Amino acid sequence: MTTTVIIGGVAGGMSAATRLRRRDEDMEIIVLEASGYVSFANCGLPYHLSGTIEQRESLLLQTPESLNSRFNLDVRVNTRATKIDRDAQTVTTEAGETISYDYLVLSPGATPVRPPIPGIERTLSLRTVEDLDAIKAATQGASRAAIIGGGFIGLEVAENVAHRGVEVTIIEASPQIMGPLDPEMAVIVKKRLEDNGVTVLTSTAAAEFTEQGVTLSDGTTIDADVVIAAIGVKPASTLASEAGLEVGERGGIVVDDHMRTSDPRIFAVGDATQKRDAVNDEPTLVPLAQTANRHGRLVADVITGRDTAARPVLGTAVVGLFGLAAASVGWNEKRARAAGRNVRTVYLHPSNHAGYYPGASQIHLKLVVDADTDAILGAQAIGEDGADKRIDVIATAMRGGLSASDLADLELAYAPQFGSAKDPVNMAGFINDNIAGGERTVAYHEIEKYKEDGWQLVDVRTPAEYSKGTITGAINIELDSIRDRIDEFEGQKVVVFCQVGQRGHTAASLLAGRGIEVANVGGGYLTWSFGQEV
Amino acid sequence: MTTTVIIGGVAGGMSAATRLRRRDEDMEIIVLEASGYVSFANCGLPYHLSGTIEQRESLLLQTPESLNSRFNLDVRVNTRATKIDRDAQTVTTEAGETISYDYLVLSPGATPVRPPIPGIERTLSLRTVEDLDAIKAATQGASRAAIIGGGFIGLEVAENVAHRGVEVTIIEASPQIMGPLDPEMAVIVKKRLEDNGVTVLTSTAAAEFTEQGVTLSDGTTIDADVVIAAIGVKPASTLASEAGLEVGERGGIVVDDHMRTSDPRIFAVGDATQKRDAVNDEPTLVPLAQTANRHGRLVADVITGRDTAARPVLGTAVVGLFGLAAASVGWNEKRARAAGRNVRTVYLHPSNHAGYYPGASQIHLKLVVDADTDAILGAQAIGEDGADKRIDVIATAMRGGLSASDLADLELAYAPQFGSAKDPVNMAGFINDNIAGGERTVAYHEIEKYKEDGWQLVDVRTPAEYSKGTITGAINIELDSIRDRIDEFEGQKVVVFCQVGQRGHTAASLLAGRGIEVANVGGGYLTWSFGQEV
Repeated sequence: MTTTVIIGGVAGGMSAATRLRRRDEDMEIIVLEASGYVSFANCGLPYHLSGTIEQRESLLLQTPESLNSRFNLDVRVNTRATKIDRDAQTVTTEAGETISYDYLVLSPGATPVRPPIPGIERTLSLRTVEDLDAIKAATQGASRAAIIGGGFIGLEVAENVAHRGVEVTIIEASPQIMGPLDPEMAVIVKKRLEDNGVTVLTSTAAAEFTEQGVTLSDGTTIDADVVIAAIGVKPASTLASEAGLEVGERGGIVVDDHMRTSDPRIFAVGDATQKRDAVNDEPTLVPLAQTANRHGRLVADVITGRDTAARPVLGTAVVGLFGLAAASVGWNEKRARAAGRNVRTVYLHPSNHAGYYPGASQIHLKLVVDADTDAILGAQAIGEDGADKRIDVIATAMRGGLSASDLADLELAYAPQFGSAKDPVNMAGFINDNIAGGERTVAYHEIEKYKEDGWQLVDVRTPAEYSKGTITGAINIELDSIRDRIDEFEGQKVVVFCQVGQRGHTAASLLAGRGIEVANVGGGYLTWSFGQEV
Repeated sequence: MTTTVIIGGVAGGMSAATRLRRRDEDMEIIVLEASGYVSFANCGLPYHLSGTIEQRESLLLQTPESLNSRFNLDVRVNTRATKIDRDAQTVTTEAGETISYDYLVLSPGATPVRPPIPGIERTLSLRTVEDLDAIKAATQGASRAAIIGGGFIGLEVAENVAHRGVEVTIIEASPQIMGPLDPEMAVIVKKRLEDNGVTVLTSTAAAEFTEQGVTLSDGTTIDADVVIAAIGVKPASTLASEAGLEVGERGGIVVDDHMRTSDPRIFAVGDATQKRDAVNDEPTLVPLAQTANRHGRLVADVITGRDTAARPVLGTAVVGLFGLAAASVGWNEKRARAAGRNVRTVYLHPSNHAGYYPGASQIHLKLVVDADTDAILGAQAIGEDGADKRIDVIATAMRGGLSASDLADLELAYAPQFGSAKDPVNMAGFINDNIAGGERTVAYHEIEKYKEDGWQLVDVRTPAEYSKGTITGAINIELDSIRDRIDEFEGQKVVVFCQVGQRGHTAASLLAGRGIEVANVGGGYLTWSFGQEV
């Protein structure tokens, strides 16, 4: 009889175990889980802190018993694997037991990064059900909490702790929260947090954790009854590297597209592994549940003799915060520029559905395009409704190899409650097509440069909009009066803008049609105003 | 100066007009609209009947004046074009005016089908703002309304009239409402209508419209103060055909992929034209706003000298009814079978988002696949939330040429409020992959045949579920006890099923692993029960 041992009983590990059983009724399948729980809902943990997910039991999707009765799995919780002997094909547990394997699947996940800041042992982290219990107990009756790190988990914990009536401060060392977003998009999320009473400190480093709370590197103190470190995660690859398995530069276990490690009897899936980036095919880390589950299923197929291969990953993700969704896929502009790409950005701020139907809300959408090839490199969307849908559509387009201009042709379901006859994704395609076709666009951070180069800034919104605030130095010539006032543009180089970029596009088309050198501000005044808070 | 005349000032026509102006500041652009309104929100009209869209003005997105001041368009409402003289390159209006063109764009839309049933003149139809006003007036104070036709518009009108407190009966001649859906999916929508007090009569033909209401072909009468005919639409191609332009079998104006008619100076877009079907590249009619708008933009590009081409159409659509969304893309099973395809169907009933997060609701999803090629032919999704998103993703996958099994690898944004680590679309890919890999599946309508052939039907749900109702003839062996009771399956051919198909899959895997001939009911008891109401 073949024996497969799986280390790690959540997401990837459990997907592998159940799929193995479905494909092989005879295999012995042993799952070793270091924590006390298997197959729990990692991504749901923060929501129990606020009581949004009321019952702790709701998070415990399976038990060793249920998995045994349904799938005939030998699931052992509180069982930490401490050593792999590749020659003997055995795993040794903390308790000293030695288990033989024909195949070994490593799915140990990732562990929270805990930098050697003095007092770090005072902080809590959230990864397991036990961690959740500890945070829940510590925040019970607390008045103030500090969250170190403004990534997905830190922000989710921040929201849910805040819902308990705790005063929350987020302390983020880098200049922005939510690294997957570009900075001018991240400010939208920051604002939503602040509007809900959460204090967000960026470019702020914690120097020490004390009884009082957090001492910052500038010497000031943030009072906190509880400090939660959510600085990031790193692959739990120590066991693998100690066994001599190849591990990548950033600590991920190296696997081929069959999820096979450098030892042909050992496979690895999930957050602990190194993936291939779908944009440039280079090694990357993408600690996401969807990929872990998918690769867990795939490794079971491979072990049971099926020729199937993993795809490079896009890293599609979403987070919900105080009613706002922030979603992203692929590369952001920062990443694309760092890689030396010739970047084209497309900004728009359309409604989630037809504006004439009640309840429409705005989506802030940014598309990052390779200007040389028109390939979609990535996208970011933020809004109260429909942001996740648009990112899913763009992720699918990327997976299908569609170009940015192809987005114009997507046929997306339209009725006024659900979208627009020109969906936001279509609009992104139209705008990209316009820019690719020669319409000059100015990014929010380039405006000062244009002004220095003698371009006149013209706000084409209404006088009422102009009077409420405009970009410094802009004069106001409303779109509908440009034809009458065309003489005023004579001999000028003009940067036009409106609220979101659409009227600016019409103005730019008109002026270009009259032979005037013109550029439009991408995403208009709104994107510029977000940029001011970067 | 070049003059372009556009016939039809909504959707396609107005998209063409504004895009033409953006691309050519000098062109003379004349828009002739037969009704009194341009650029109105067709798709929003039904929602004003209920007051959901409170202000009639909200539906009037532009006026001739606003279009003139912004785009320098010459927009003439209440101006019906009655004749095209192709040699002279002129259009004549009802009022006798003759207008010369260099380019002519036909975007007259579609007109409601009004069959020669006695009394048809008593019925109202909904296409224009004037029609809306008439229906609004007629339903004011009415007690009973009959809607002839259970397509998109008929159902939207039914809902919105019902919201006014009017008792509504839908009379549909074919055996099901919502033709784009397969019958077992359409019953879900029918049930939602009935649960909200709407009477739905299928396979029921209207024989006469009288003062009393509708006389059916069986002689019975449906009392109605108002009768609205929403039997379908046909291309408004009379003007084109009278001018000798080529028109297809089903009445659509024939255009090439530059939207050019058989006369190189005349283009046509929108509901009046014949499109190419994305699945088989054959002529089709797809009267949808998204396509009309897209082709309007495209024709402006072509006229202004850009080489760009229309794509074949998928016909992605959605309708919202009493809180339920029913969306579809591509071909349904009926269509695929009629075309002689080797059809594989995939049914599933997953949650819109993680079940452990509050507020999850069910999506009924059906994928229609070409079993010979694994190509996605189409999909249907019905649910209270997230159905539109899944259809948009599948439409994008189809456009990108992804196979049904490729859906398993899509990376879709996951957080527990928005989806699942295995999204419904991924699950559809997994199920397809299982079936393609050899798992035998039984469609709801094939069960009787299997029973006749001696297969034993086994309900693998819990005894509690079984006791509430099962498929006739099924015995109950709960999934988790199959291993203990494996002897009972000895020498049998077994059809297993559970509630939605998932436990059935596990049971089928187990039994197949023990050498038993087994098949699983696609979509489980739930799909079967929908099928019973077909």
